[in-house]
Parts: sequence; C-alpha cells; structure tokens
Amino acid sequence: MEVFYQPDILNGVHHLSADESKHCIKVLRHGKGDRIYVADGRGTLFEVRIEDPNPKACVFSIISHSRRPDKGFAVSIAIAPTKNNERTEWFVEKAIELGIDEINFYFGRHSERKKMNMERLHKKAVAAMKQSEQFILPAMKLYDSFADCLAATPADRQRFIAHVDPSHPYHLMDMAEKGGAYTVFIGPEGDFAEDELVAAFEAGFTKVSLGPNRLRTETAGLVACHILNLINR
Amino acid sequence: MEVFYQPDILNGVHHLSADESKHCIKVLRHGKGDRIYVADGRGTLFEVRIEDPNPKACVFSIISHSRRPDKGFAVSIAIAPTKNNERTEWFVEKAIELGIDEINFYFGRHSERKKMNMERLHKKAVAAMKQSEQFILPAMKLYDSFADCLAATPADRQRFIAHVDPSHPYHLMDMAEKGGAYTVFIGPEGDFAEDELVAAFEAGFTKVSLGPNRLRTETAGLVACHILNLINR
Repeated sequence: MEVFYQPDILNGVHHLSADESKHCIKVLRHGKGDRIYVADGRGTLFEVRIEDPNPKACVFSIISHSRRPDKGFAVSIAIAPTKNNERTEWFVEKAIELGIDEINFYFGRHSERKKMNMERLHKKAVAAMKQSEQFILPAMKLYDSFADCLAATPADRQRFIAHVDPSHPYHLMDMAEKGGAYTVFIGPEGDFAEDELVAAFEAGFTKVSLGPNRLRTETAGLVACHILNLINR
Repeated sequence: MEVFYQPDILNGVHHLSADESKHCIKVLRHGKGDRIYVADGRGTLFEVRIEDPNPKACVFSIISHSRRPDKGFAVSIAIAPTKNNERTEWFVEKAIELGIDEINFYFGRHSERKKMNMERLHKKAVAAMKQSEQFILPAMKLYDSFADCLAATPADRQRFIAHVDPSHPYHLMDMAEKGGAYTVFIGPEGDFAEDELVAAFEAGFTKVSLGPNRLRTETAGLVACHILNLINR
C-alpha cells in the first residue's frame, strides 16, 4: 500500500507537497481518478481520489478515512544525539515502529555530537511512519542543552531518568504506572553530567534502571519505549 | 578497554588468532609484558600478559579472570534472514547487547532471502560481543528450512511462535514463565507458511503476540528477546 503524507489535510489542504506530488505522478504514474492513501501523521489514514494530477501539487478529494483508537498513554523520550548519526536514525525508525509519540533531542554537557540535521531526520521519520502502518509521526524537537529540554517537560508527565546506579537498581518496568504520559531521559555516550542529574532530581525525575546490561544510547531509548508499551499492554 | 577474543582459552590455547594478533601487535603496538584482556565468548574475561608479541600468533599467560554470574535463564531466537542483510546484522548486534544466548537462522518457505554469509555475521557478532562488555557470544547456526530448525529445538525449551492472530491475542509477556530456557520463532517478511505454523503447533509451540504494532522481522526478534529479559528481571 503506497501512502502519502499531508499533515494539514484536516486544515483543508487537499493536495500533496511538491516532493510527494512528483513521486506520485512522475514516478508512480498515477493519474486523474486514481485512488491513493494519505496519512496526516496523527493516526488518521484517508482514502482519496486524485482530481488534478499536477506533478507539483497533486490535488485530491477525500473518499473516506479511518482512525486508530487512542491507545490511552503517551511516550516521550528525551535523548542525546549519538556520535554516529546512523544510530540516531535507527532509533527514530524503530521507535516509530513501536508507536512513540514524541522524541526530544538535547545536547548534553558530555555529548560528543554537537550538531544535528533535523530536516534529514524528519524525512527518515516520515518514511518510517508510512512503513509502520500506524501513521503516527512523533513530534520531534531539538534543544540546545539538557536544561532547556528539561524545562520544556510538561507538568503532567511521569518523569524518569535512565541512570546506572548500583545503589538504586529500580527498574523502569516496576516504577512507571499504567496510563498517562511519560517522559524518559536517556544520557549521551559520555553519560549525564553531575549537575544535569541534580537538576533532573530537583525537577521531580526518578532515577531508573533499564536492566543489568550496559546498553548503547540508542538501544536504551528503544528499550525504555518498549517497557512503557508493555506496562500498557 | 581493548578486548580480544579466544574461544579456546580454557582448552589451553594461550595465543590470539592471526587476525587478532596482527591487530594487537601491528596496529595497537602492544609488546612483551603488556597487559591486555581476552574474552572467551562464554562470559569469562581474562587479564593476560603478552609473553611473545608474535604478530601471527601473539602468546600470552593468564594473570586473572572474572566471570559474570549465571543469569538463570537462556534465550534462543529462531529468525528468518531479512531481505536487507543490514537489518539482520543490526538484530545480531542489538540482541548481543541484550545478552541473547543463541540465534538460529532458517530459510522459511516465504523468505525472500535464500543465502546468508555466516562468516561475516560471526565477525559482526564478535565485535558486538567485545563492545557489549558482557562477553557472551551467542551460538549462531543456519538451517536450510523451517522444519530443520524446528526439529533442532531441544526438548526442555519453553516454545513460542510469534504469529499475528487477532483471535488469539496472548502476549509473550503473559505466556512465558520466569526461568529456564526459551525458544521463540520469528517469521520472515512474507510471514510463516500455513504448513510451517501447523508443524510448530504439533511440536508444542504456543502462538504469541508481541503487541498491537506491526513490527519488522528484526524488530520482532529484538522485542521478543527483551520481553524474556524483563520477565526474568
């Protein structure tokens, strides 16, 4: 099933972007009257009919739509970009497969990477969203620092920070409560700085373990997302 | 920490392979008397002293060793190689991070990929094992067919097959019991063939769900491994 993406379809935008129009008309050779699918990235999938096969702005009309029922919880992971960019892209793809709702990136004091191409990441996310058949595109934002990202955490979240501390081995699986919204902070390859940890504790974050194994940053992010899914299974 | 690999160290083989010797002596420029670490891939890490810095067979003597305590359960995933080989390599790396014990590959009736370079995969696995700091190299085997792989499952395993069936939505998390050894079959991109499913049920495998989301083959394999870790946390 070929799916296209138009985030503003419910705001009355009934044509595809230039990139997607070109792909639809020039590459896939769709024409007037053809039926295609369009996702809004918020869980609704539209079946539409092509009215004007313009390769720069393919116009369509809506035939029907279907919406996945609300899952009753929301997962946000705050994660530092990895040194190797592919690992971050991998995390985004896999987290979308698991139905993540929000991904915040921040540059920690010990982060080795200090730059991030959010546009490229957005394209990867859109591709993963289409592929996943869930049609949820997570909100993705980049923060200049851990403090900024921390301060942006909404008040209603269950707040966790994944930090290895043998004297406090409480597993996220046992600490998170079913339902509601979660934010979990995952540290960079160089781990959290001491003042970042202190700031998180002061902001009401609870230290949690993700298990006995040493995990890479991107694996820790995915595993945290999966644990919250399982609690809400 | 630079770690080398010698699976036969407990059988009295006290030198590195040609590849690892070259890396140790020529690239890292270690010399006589230097202390390095050697893992046997079965959970034991040895601190050793270089006695003969031969770049073709670096000889060492053992100073000390440490062994991770037995974790009390064992996970085996039987999985079909993915069409895109990188996805299988990614699965192997991540599953090793999560401490997997055994990976069996099989070509299913609906598998798109019909070939697999096990030597390349072994090298990737050794690199991931060193990186993971757990020093467990999973046993990896390739079977020509689903039936062969099924027949090779030891009798003492808790047996599961991950198959999407809306009329039987029992989650692996609720079906597996803590402790012991597990085998979970993951289907190829084209899913299991009907006769493969029947054969699995006849062999005592229980159908399980891995959650409501449609997962790629390699994600399903990783998620199954993680669920069994969580049950045994």
